[in-house]
Amino acid sequence: MNRNQLFEQIIAKRSFLCVGLDTELDKIPKHLLTLEDPLFEFNKQVVDATQEYAIAYKPNLAFYEAYGLKGWQSLEKTVQYIRSTYPNQFLIADAKRGDIGNTSKMYAKAFFENLNFDAITVAPYMGEDSVTPFLGYNKKWVILLGLTSNKGAADFQFLDNPPIYQQVIKKSQQWATPDELMYVVGATQSAMLQEIRAIAPANFLLVPGVGAQGGSLEEVAKYGMNTQCGLIVNSSRAIIYANNTELFAKIAGEKAKEVRDEMDVLLQRYL
Amino acid sequence: MNRNQLFEQIIAKRSFLCVGLDTELDKIPKHLLTLEDPLFEFNKQVVDATQEYAIAYKPNLAFYEAYGLKGWQSLEKTVQYIRSTYPNQFLIADAKRGDIGNTSKMYAKAFFENLNFDAITVAPYMGEDSVTPFLGYNKKWVILLGLTSNKGAADFQFLDNPPIYQQVIKKSQQWATPDELMYVVGATQSAMLQEIRAIAPANFLLVPGVGAQGGSLEEVAKYGMNTQCGLIVNSSRAIIYANNTELFAKIAGEKAKEVRDEMDVLLQRYL
Repeated sequence: MNRNQLFEQIIAKRSFLCVGLDTELDKIPKHLLTLEDPLFEFNKQVVDATQEYAIAYKPNLAFYEAYGLKGWQSLEKTVQYIRSTYPNQFLIADAKRGDIGNTSKMYAKAFFENLNFDAITVAPYMGEDSVTPFLGYNKKWVILLGLTSNKGAADFQFLDNPPIYQQVIKKSQQWATPDELMYVVGATQSAMLQEIRAIAPANFLLVPGVGAQGGSLEEVAKYGMNTQCGLIVNSSRAIIYANNTELFAKIAGEKAKEVRDEMDVLLQRYL
Repeated sequence: MNRNQLFEQIIAKRSFLCVGLDTELDKIPKHLLTLEDPLFEFNKQVVDATQEYAIAYKPNLAFYEAYGLKGWQSLEKTVQYIRSTYPNQFLIADAKRGDIGNTSKMYAKAFFENLNFDAITVAPYMGEDSVTPFLGYNKKWVILLGLTSNKGAADFQFLDNPPIYQQVIKKSQQWATPDELMYVVGATQSAMLQEIRAIAPANFLLVPGVGAQGGSLEEVAKYGMNTQCGLIVNSSRAIIYANNTELFAKIAGEKAKEVRDEMDVLLQRYL
């Protein structure tokens, strides 16, 4: 999916919501556990109920790798299901990979070729040659960690002047255009969105941390939106675990609709 | 495996060699490709031939994830085989993971509980709460990226003063003792080993980049060795792909022996 196609989806759905599929056996409704593939079944029902209000899904790789072979199988089935049933959804592998060139190349193969994701999150610590192997795929994206939403972000991302996260964003602009490079920008730091927009006016930003992690959607839209929206805001737990009974999917859908309705208003106000 | 046990292995084998299992279908001998699980078969034969000269093995996760479910299966079989056949080998998951707390916890579960690795490589960009979920496992280790051996290391690791990689090493000393924390330190930068040893005198260092990436083993030992050796030096391609015929395992063993013999001399000189 290219940048214009992504923007078209946002306009068509009046939404820039990404639903994070951080699916855990301990947290999904008990009645699913007797099924053959509870992780996939949970994902399928959540996706069916939320797809009308979301433009993207983001499985978090850790949650599938934690279950070994079976988890990897559930991931593959989830991606295939979304791809074939809802081909306009943007699929993000939240993997936070990044390694020397020949290794990053293998990760690109894993996530872009075999699993057919649209985008992968990448960690910047190892620099240019750890990031560029993910570039140059047609309609595929790198989402580079800029400013993260966790407490530990302050340990290294704020060092130096200008702070490291700004230098990461600035430097990486030389490696790729906004047609294949996005940034992860933590919503809990929305005051800094203005500074980031000054460095990266055209790039899409993937914003985690709205919802369970406590960011404000209004602030994110106010300071982060550009002429093509330029935002994908993720919510995981607040949507997928809103309810723990047989009604879980229905309630997830309602939560997603609530967020979409709020996004609709913000798109009218700031786009 | 704890720190003393690791040191005992080094002394017993007169080696601090780790063999990196960056196994690729395109690079292994053709005659293996007709077997049911070529990746595992290659690993098994390489391990059998090199285990006498090595104290550690380091499968690189990218190379298995690139083959999807089948790759993950080959990885599981490789780990199980080494665990049951050579229980004194130290097993490193070269995964370069690192994410918000609940996600890092799932990666810890994946690599320490399900796959039973001794150690995992972790990226520091997201700070303390992305690293600490990997700590507190009995006899398990975090190997944090400090200074990497690739060209892109200069992009961000050398920013600020003292440079970021030194601040990463210094700050993370507050999070864990040298009994569960090692660092990745690229051998191609061996002049900087002295500075790193001043900050982290007791920690083991995992040194990639000797061999195909061109570091000098002599320099690494001279500046990096401490009273418990404190070094695990990795070689991947120079050993496992030394030969591409039916003799591949035999030649890999000979290459590993050559490195071990050099290490034996260095242990006598610098320990």
